[in-house]
Amino acid sequence: MKNYLDILFNPQSVAIFGASNEQGKVGAMIMNNIVACGYRGKVFPINPNKKYEGKDIFGYKVYPSIENVSEKIDLAVIVVPRKVVKNMIVQCIKNTIRTAIIIPAGFGETNEEGKKDEKELTRIAENGNLKFVGPNTMGFWSANISLNVSMGYMSPLPGNVSIISQSGSTGVVICSELRGMGVGIRYFVSSGNEASLSFEDYLEYFINDNETKIIAGFLEGLRKRNKFLNICKKNVTKKPIIILKAGTTDPGIKAASSHTGSISGSDEVYNATFKQYGILRAQNINQFLDLIRAFICINLPEGNRVAILPGAGGMGVLTADASDKAGLNVAKPSQGLINKINEILPDYWSHSNPFDPVGTQDLSVFPTLLELLLESNEYDCVITNVIEIRSLLEQYFPQHDEGKQIKQMMIEVMDSTEKSVARRQIKILNKYRKPVVFISHVYPNSKLFRIFEKKNVLIVKNPDSAAFVLKSLYEYNRFLKKIKENSQTTIQR
Amino acid sequence: MKNYLDILFNPQSVAIFGASNEQGKVGAMIMNNIVACGYRGKVFPINPNKKYEGKDIFGYKVYPSIENVSEKIDLAVIVVPRKVVKNMIVQCIKNTIRTAIIIPAGFGETNEEGKKDEKELTRIAENGNLKFVGPNTMGFWSANISLNVSMGYMSPLPGNVSIISQSGSTGVVICSELRGMGVGIRYFVSSGNEASLSFEDYLEYFINDNETKIIAGFLEGLRKRNKFLNICKKNVTKKPIIILKAGTTDPGIKAASSHTGSISGSDEVYNATFKQYGILRAQNINQFLDLIRAFICINLPEGNRVAILPGAGGMGVLTADASDKAGLNVAKPSQGLINKINEILPDYWSHSNPFDPVGTQDLSVFPTLLELLLESNEYDCVITNVIEIRSLLEQYFPQHDEGKQIKQMMIEVMDSTEKSVARRQIKILNKYRKPVVFISHVYPNSKLFRIFEKKNVLIVKNPDSAAFVLKSLYEYNRFLKKIKENSQTTIQR
Repeated sequence: MKNYLDILFNPQSVAIFGASNEQGKVGAMIMNNIVACGYRGKVFPINPNKKYEGKDIFGYKVYPSIENVSEKIDLAVIVVPRKVVKNMIVQCIKNTIRTAIIIPAGFGETNEEGKKDEKELTRIAENGNLKFVGPNTMGFWSANISLNVSMGYMSPLPGNVSIISQSGSTGVVICSELRGMGVGIRYFVSSGNEASLSFEDYLEYFINDNETKIIAGFLEGLRKRNKFLNICKKNVTKKPIIILKAGTTDPGIKAASSHTGSISGSDEVYNATFKQYGILRAQNINQFLDLIRAFICINLPEGNRVAILPGAGGMGVLTADASDKAGLNVAKPSQGLINKINEILPDYWSHSNPFDPVGTQDLSVFPTLLELLLESNEYDCVITNVIEIRSLLEQYFPQHDEGKQIKQMMIEVMDSTEKSVARRQIKILNKYRKPVVFISHVYPNSKLFRIFEKKNVLIVKNPDSAAFVLKSLYEYNRFLKKIKENSQTTIQR
Repeated sequence: MKNYLDILFNPQSVAIFGASNEQGKVGAMIMNNIVACGYRGKVFPINPNKKYEGKDIFGYKVYPSIENVSEKIDLAVIVVPRKVVKNMIVQCIKNTIRTAIIIPAGFGETNEEGKKDEKELTRIAENGNLKFVGPNTMGFWSANISLNVSMGYMSPLPGNVSIISQSGSTGVVICSELRGMGVGIRYFVSSGNEASLSFEDYLEYFINDNETKIIAGFLEGLRKRNKFLNICKKNVTKKPIIILKAGTTDPGIKAASSHTGSISGSDEVYNATFKQYGILRAQNINQFLDLIRAFICINLPEGNRVAILPGAGGMGVLTADASDKAGLNVAKPSQGLINKINEILPDYWSHSNPFDPVGTQDLSVFPTLLELLLESNEYDCVITNVIEIRSLLEQYFPQHDEGKQIKQMMIEVMDSTEKSVARRQIKILNKYRKPVVFISHVYPNSKLFRIFEKKNVLIVKNPDSAAFVLKSLYEYNRFLKKIKENSQTTIQR
């Protein structure tokens, strides 16, 4: 299997069956994307239509048939009408092509006829030593060779996250969001109906890929449950696996079945399996994206004691609630720590966790307090707010001229103050290795986000997300330690 | 009480004790905001400092003392240091001022001394027939007279939502977000420590205010529980009350106590009370904002049967899960409805709810399907996606010149297609009266949002929010009907 996937994701040459230059046609979208993302291999558009005779698409000569291509083709992309897909696969096999993507829908996810056609397709491919992605797929992205062979308008950044999505469009949205968050992707694959290659195959390949540091999956249902369990068992603790499982309710399961023909199965079974193998589970797209970025940005918490350093009181209360509900310990500070803070804050600060500076106008206390909390041995992690008064000023529209001037002046003051606070915070994060999560209510549109993003500071949208991320990473760490302990015990015996 | 609050929220004249022109001082922020939002009353800055002799602030003459002001003052704003607050209140009483805002912190929310000072302040005020907001408050906004007498950088739009917030900064963030969502505010008050006027007083006033259509509260803890219960009992079903209750866990309750000195009490009691009186409960700021806008934008669902019309398959599965979990009924369509849709969609559409058009490239099917769902008698509400391929194109960066041209062309095509789809959707919403919630993953930065916003179309960020909003409004409707039935039964007897 590894051989197939090596070829699939790193082809030296690609033939596009059904390539087109007519905007709006899928064959044109695929051609455009291959060129758009700077693929570093050879491209062979194939279209028997007379109008392409002697023509090219984006500078690539069009061939009437694969027979006319003399070079060895690694990957076939099939974008012909669904009725002629089978013929194309037969041609691929004849020409010893070993991997393909079958884009068209209308197979196993529809009716009995579609299911029959899909089975036939799979049988032919297997007998011909060909493995394929799909059918009913958006395609894939591979960073190694900058290949975006997909229908999606997306330009992933190269990186170390590999993504398997059983929903094509949701996958494209995820890739687009990750680009906005500055997160790079190594592989993205829309697995479609998984008639040949399945979620489990990609998972195994990504686990064994050295450049993949984090695996993230949008899952509607596993098709090869035993294979999945075996992979998890063999590779437990190798790298974090984050899964957003859709199809957790009866209507969701039915929807998943008509979407990609997947069998969802009982949610409790999935939960138990994920727990057993340390797989992190997201409940929605936001949690999914937050967990991915968390693994890039922060270390795993060594314990569950969280210090809360809110931008203001109300946010402190909400964050304390969210942390406690998530299972974090909003631990009380020692008198020693309180004494240290007394030297910095006016005497009516909260004297407890959350560490509420109570309306201080001196924003430089935020990094100072952050450092005190991190250097103490009293907390394993911190939740704090991005100081972003500037973003409020942008929704502030004074009607008088002096007010407009004051607004402009305040924007300038806040701009430089907030940036200097952010830079000090980043320095402190680099000095201590404890995980810190920032909350921003205007993220990712905060002007400060770009500063934080470049330095891999973790920002989330609200207290619930912050608590969820820390709790998940803490539990993952506990899981790793438990496995390690068990294996050492085994060795000692 | 009504008289006091009428004067407080609609003063013809305001005196600012501690007014300043030094940027950064609270006395300057308050002065600036009063002028910035176009207050339509008289303004009297008061400051005994010699440097203000014969000077003015923003064109308003500064007085050394309230004694020097000959006109009647309706509202005193106290921004002097906390130690001299008492003296100012005594002066107010001497000059028959009946309402005040006490901005400074450092009272009942801190230590025993602060508590004592606050009690003394309240006693003096009560004996002198003066009621006040605070202490430890950000101030308030009143649309009637365009008065923003607060420390917050905010420019609320005038409207019909009245807001009580026990957290000042969270309140300002809420006002700022509502401005971004195009939601107008009638009153906003940061209630602070509530030493004199309390959450319950404002609630009662807003219930009886004809211009207030929706009441929203950020609550850390009630101080006059019996009064609250009486108000609710007397005014049940009068207008929707939405509450975000913070301080629901032990650490949260402690944080609330040191924040505004409030007593949170058991969360179960709050839940039971809210349920009994049909108060809508939000669990976080996003739910809070979504519920407010929901009451402005959509009618109450008459039942819980939801039709899901997703932009694509994966989103359909997630929305079906979220709807089912929230308690909505993802009801199956009749054969008649399926037949009608068969005439519009390719034969491999989902044939079930979610109504997945399965990768159709013809975006005009979305409004057509929406109309079919609304005109059927099979659904009480609809969840659908904003069609926003354009937003994906904005994260798409082709490297070749033709690709850049294609991107530009596609942006233009999508811009006009998506706008025309949106306009058709809006027409259909206006024709049928059933509630529809749109999901946008780029809201509120979607270019389409402004079109939808102007026409009061409800957009939320994800399937969970959509299901939460519909379920909450459905339950509120059931509550109203139950109360109505009970009262009719009583009358018949």
